[in-house]
Amino acid sequence: MKKDTVNAKSNELGFGSKNVSGRNRFLNKNGKINIRRKGKNFMESFDVYHTLINMSWIKFLLLIVASYIVVNIIFAGVYYYLGAKSFGNIEVSDPVKSFEDLFFFSAQTLTTVGYGYVYPKTAAVSSVAAVESLIGLLIFAIATGVLYGRFSKPNATILYSEKMLVAPYKGITGLMFRIANPKRNELIEIEAQVTVSMINRETNSRSFLQLPLELSRINFLSINWTVVHPIDETSPIYGMSQEDLLAAEVEFIIMIKAMNDTYSQTVYSRSSYVADEIVFGARFKSFDIKPGNKGRTIVDITALSEYDTVELPVERVAAGSV
Amino acid sequence: MKKDTVNAKSNELGFGSKNVSGRNRFLNKNGKINIRRKGKNFMESFDVYHTLINMSWIKFLLLIVASYIVVNIIFAGVYYYLGAKSFGNIEVSDPVKSFEDLFFFSAQTLTTVGYGYVYPKTAAVSSVAAVESLIGLLIFAIATGVLYGRFSKPNATILYSEKMLVAPYKGITGLMFRIANPKRNELIEIEAQVTVSMINRETNSRSFLQLPLELSRINFLSINWTVVHPIDETSPIYGMSQEDLLAAEVEFIIMIKAMNDTYSQTVYSRSSYVADEIVFGARFKSFDIKPGNKGRTIVDITALSEYDTVELPVERVAAGSV
Amino acid sequence: MKKDTVNAKSNELGFGSKNVSGRNRFLNKNGKINIRRKGKNFMESFDVYHTLINMSWIKFLLLIVASYIVVNIIFAGVYYYLGAKSFGNIEVSDPVKSFEDLFFFSAQTLTTVGYGYVYPKTAAVSSVAAVESLIGLLIFAIATGVLYGRFSKPNATILYSEKMLVAPYKGITGLMFRIANPKRNELIEIEAQVTVSMINRETNSRSFLQLPLELSRINFLSINWTVVHPIDETSPIYGMSQEDLLAAEVEFIIMIKAMNDTYSQTVYSRSSYVADEIVFGARFKSFDIKPGNKGRTIVDITALSEYDTVELPVERVAAGSV
Amino acid sequence: MKKDTVNAKSNELGFGSKNVSGRNRFLNKNGKINIRRKGKNFMESFDVYHTLINMSWIKFLLLIVASYIVVNIIFAGVYYYLGAKSFGNIEVSDPVKSFEDLFFFSAQTLTTVGYGYVYPKTAAVSSVAAVESLIGLLIFAIATGVLYGRFSKPNATILYSEKMLVAPYKGITGLMFRIANPKRNELIEIEAQVTVSMINRETNSRSFLQLPLELSRINFLSINWTVVHPIDETSPIYGMSQEDLLAAEVEFIIMIKAMNDTYSQTVYSRSSYVADEIVFGARFKSFDIKPGNKGRTIVDITALSEYDTVELPVERVAAGSV
Repeated sequence: MKKDTVNAKSNELGFGSKNVSGRNRFLNKNGKINIRRKGKNFMESFDVYHTLINMSWIKFLLLIVASYIVVNIIFAGVYYYLGAKSFGNIEVSDPVKSFEDLFFFSAQTLTTVGYGYVYPKTAAVSSVAAVESLIGLLIFAIATGVLYGRFSKPNATILYSEKMLVAPYKGITGLMFRIANPKRNELIEIEAQVTVSMINRETNSRSFLQLPLELSRINFLSINWTVVHPIDETSPIYGMSQEDLLAAEVEFIIMIKAMNDTYSQTVYSRSSYVADEIVFGARFKSFDIKPGNKGRTIVDITALSEYDTVELPVERVAAGSV
Repeated sequence: MKKDTVNAKSNELGFGSKNVSGRNRFLNKNGKINIRRKGKNFMESFDVYHTLINMSWIKFLLLIVASYIVVNIIFAGVYYYLGAKSFGNIEVSDPVKSFEDLFFFSAQTLTTVGYGYVYPKTAAVSSVAAVESLIGLLIFAIATGVLYGRFSKPNATILYSEKMLVAPYKGITGLMFRIANPKRNELIEIEAQVTVSMINRETNSRSFLQLPLELSRINFLSINWTVVHPIDETSPIYGMSQEDLLAAEVEFIIMIKAMNDTYSQTVYSRSSYVADEIVFGARFKSFDIKPGNKGRTIVDITALSEYDTVELPVERVAAGSV
Repeated sequence: MKKDTVNAKSNELGFGSKNVSGRNRFLNKNGKINIRRKGKNFMESFDVYHTLINMSWIKFLLLIVASYIVVNIIFAGVYYYLGAKSFGNIEVSDPVKSFEDLFFFSAQTLTTVGYGYVYPKTAAVSSVAAVESLIGLLIFAIATGVLYGRFSKPNATILYSEKMLVAPYKGITGLMFRIANPKRNELIEIEAQVTVSMINRETNSRSFLQLPLELSRINFLSINWTVVHPIDETSPIYGMSQEDLLAAEVEFIIMIKAMNDTYSQTVYSRSSYVADEIVFGARFKSFDIKPGNKGRTIVDITALSEYDTVELPVERVAAGSV
Repeated sequence: MKKDTVNAKSNELGFGSKNVSGRNRFLNKNGKINIRRKGKNFMESFDVYHTLINMSWIKFLLLIVASYIVVNIIFAGVYYYLGAKSFGNIEVSDPVKSFEDLFFFSAQTLTTVGYGYVYPKTAAVSSVAAVESLIGLLIFAIATGVLYGRFSKPNATILYSEKMLVAPYKGITGLMFRIANPKRNELIEIEAQVTVSMINRETNSRSFLQLPLELSRINFLSINWTVVHPIDETSPIYGMSQEDLLAAEVEFIIMIKAMNDTYSQTVYSRSSYVADEIVFGARFKSFDIKPGNKGRTIVDITALSEYDTVELPVERVAAGSV
């Protein structure tokens, strides 16, 4: 019985098999891929929509307010250059006051409020105002789309247990982690895929192997799901202790695919665990499940990452773990 | 021939196998999962879009009107605080009248109507008005997205027969329910999956077993579909009477997946039947089908849940049912 | 060798096997299902969005204009009832002129233009105007969504040849029809499924059988696709003449599934051919293909339905056709 | 061992097998299909949305500005025809000035700014203005949808290496090309399909054969992917030299399918290589991979198309290449 990668299906993840120096993880805990592409044919700067969709709400709102102020200052400047006296009801004697008035006229034009107390009198400023109101409408058309995109973006906010556990499982041991859905929507048809990335010290190359799971798909993620990889003799990590895992710089790459019931969209979530996020000899605590009113069951998902220490089967301990 | 769960494929639904006390159903009749998640890492409050999309139209419209009034009162308050005399054409002598006027000015600003009879004169109130019109535009941008989301949300409004029937079927008996599409759109590529959840009294654990169906997929849901599970010797409910079903606290969990032709979106519908929603010895009534004009066929789906009493095959009755 | 339905896969379409009297087709040529559902639980009236999305552009625009006029007349009526003298700059002496002015004030409020020459003076009319501008914004928010829905609706406007042909095919005969994409977008991963519905005179029941195709999937629909069912001994229509097809009230139900490249959406198209739309002994004409400029190939799809008469293999004619 | 197309799966692409004269490619490098459909049933002109979504940003913005000017000139003309004296505050003595004023009034109406300094006085011009503001709202509703469509359109901007290489591969040779994702978003579940189109000089017909790949699917396109077709004895291009490829007018048609993580949408990319884009005896250069800050890996994708000359295995050279 060979110790390593027996029978495991090789799994190309697109990271390449070159062993990059250092203990970098491939995936961050939040699922972002830990690689930055650059180069003359890289088009980062053009993906405006992607940026607007994915920035935080705080940044997004600050960006809107800042743009609003900047655009109005620019147009107020143009109007001021063309002459405050081209407008009705503007105090032309005081430059500061008239710039102020033009700034607010610009805001009223950009938002298409158009009170009309201040109004353009000459063709020149009328033209600029006509352009500004068109720009205002286009900007708010884009804002509408971006806001819709932000809201309707499918996101599988899946919670992962902080640690992966090696726990007793059907006479042998199993490598397991737990996931839960922290949102009110329902996730259905959930699929999990776990790939281990480990270094072969003899060849100094990194291999990626898909781990067989006890169950790779469930119908609802109603309470939680403990995803289990049985560590039997065919497992690539069979007989390895925590030190072995650290030495092999293992990283367990998790991919979850689910159907979000609200939007009927397939959503993806990724995460990863590295060697020092594995706990040997531990078992997840049960959730607190209570009957609620109207025949409901209430589940407290606070305990998602909590575990109790347990003893592993002798054979397992003999192999050197804990 | 064992009596229980022979050959049936075990089916994990994500509910866990722990037997929760009481006769709770897992799914409500409307398909909502009968479990409420809570806990410190539960993010219910943030899923604003999900809430806005799924609330009833009445509530949604009331929310809009209430928000409109509240926002206008707030801004009128700010304007009043800054001084009604900062506005053109406002009656400053009467506080109530001037607050009223400021409320309507606020409404005209928020909606970007901006008649301009009342207009801001000082930089302070002009700034607030500029902010208000920006907020107005953003709110209505969001409203546009939410309204589109509400309208375009795929919903498979599938009608289920009230009861599941145990009826004669090809010499043996079959467990059957009936579905119909009550909307004008067409559902195509309809798939059904039926899972039975039942308690094993010996181990006091709940098991989930997928039931084989006579047909698990049809091409159109043009009239109706009677989904049939043949109760042969391999069925987990073979030989069980209604009392047996009640004792085992069975719940038949139905999942329907279909393609909505109008939106080209996969839609899902769920429902469930518990033991006392099963009728032994009954057969669904035929629908009233009449030729319409222009060569059409007119189908009256009123009879969806109606059934006639029939006698079950002797062997079946001998097993103790009815 | 039995004459009928040997080896053909039975195919439930959801139409039921009851033989409805008369020569009704199940699908119209345009793919609409020829069945109208009704009944107390039918919800036709609620599917507003579906109706707005699928009505013709002419009707849609007329509906918008008509609603615009009606809403403005209603609000003008309310304003008139509350008193034209509650408005600034309205001619109160002439009832017709003042109603006219109020109608235009309403239009300016609904569209949020708000010139403000005419403006509300009292709290009563200001309130109604505030409500009207809110309604205006909501209506146009809905219109934005509906217009987007109309435009972005995936539609596989597939052209079908008018007739199905029985033509010589690899020594035997084949039942074939031809499709083309009349739009500028590209359809990829096109799948076809052909089901024959025919009456068995002995049992007076209708059966649905899926026909095996020479090729059920292609990668691009770049020019055209001739879908072929080889009429070999396993075909349910083997040896049948046109009279036999008419007697059996056959209908060939076509379902096409494709990926629209522009919207990355799966689109569906359906059509059907009945017995008298089958031509025995005919072969589709080739398209006119010419080299264009810039190395392009230009294809004229006008000939989609055109065919030449050919002689069928002797065995076929002996079986009684033409 | 036959020289040609042994064991390769025949692959219908929908181009037809007719050998069109000249060295046209089926696909352009950018993936556009090199065929133009025309004919009386071709509906090119109606696909307005497709056109608006796919035109360049420059053209799109110019179109908006041009339409804005044209629409305003038309309405200004109508107002002028109805009489400038029907408006408040318009200089009627000077025709040019009054047309100018009406043009700006039109712009203020179309964008719903409505300052109201100039305002309609008669029923005739008020009616036209009411229509114009409605048209304005509808146009901007459409613009909102189109802008959203442009932004949210899934596009798999995949970069392809300029050449396909024939390089040493596991003792034999392999035909390979390289792809990378130049955008910041992540592509997951990437699938590749390579089809060779080649002419059989004996039958003068063109055949399409799918090439088996070393790997036809990867999980992430995080750095790059070298897609490899091993040229073993079963390959349709086994033993062919560059001259043979030119003579057979080969074209390698590439189809890439991936899941865009940001939009949860399946995206497609296509490209093709013709015979003179194949380099015999070359190997892709490695990318420059450096550790970045925060444990990131930085990859420079500039070298995507760069290669070094290598010697092919003797057997390969003996077969006549280079």
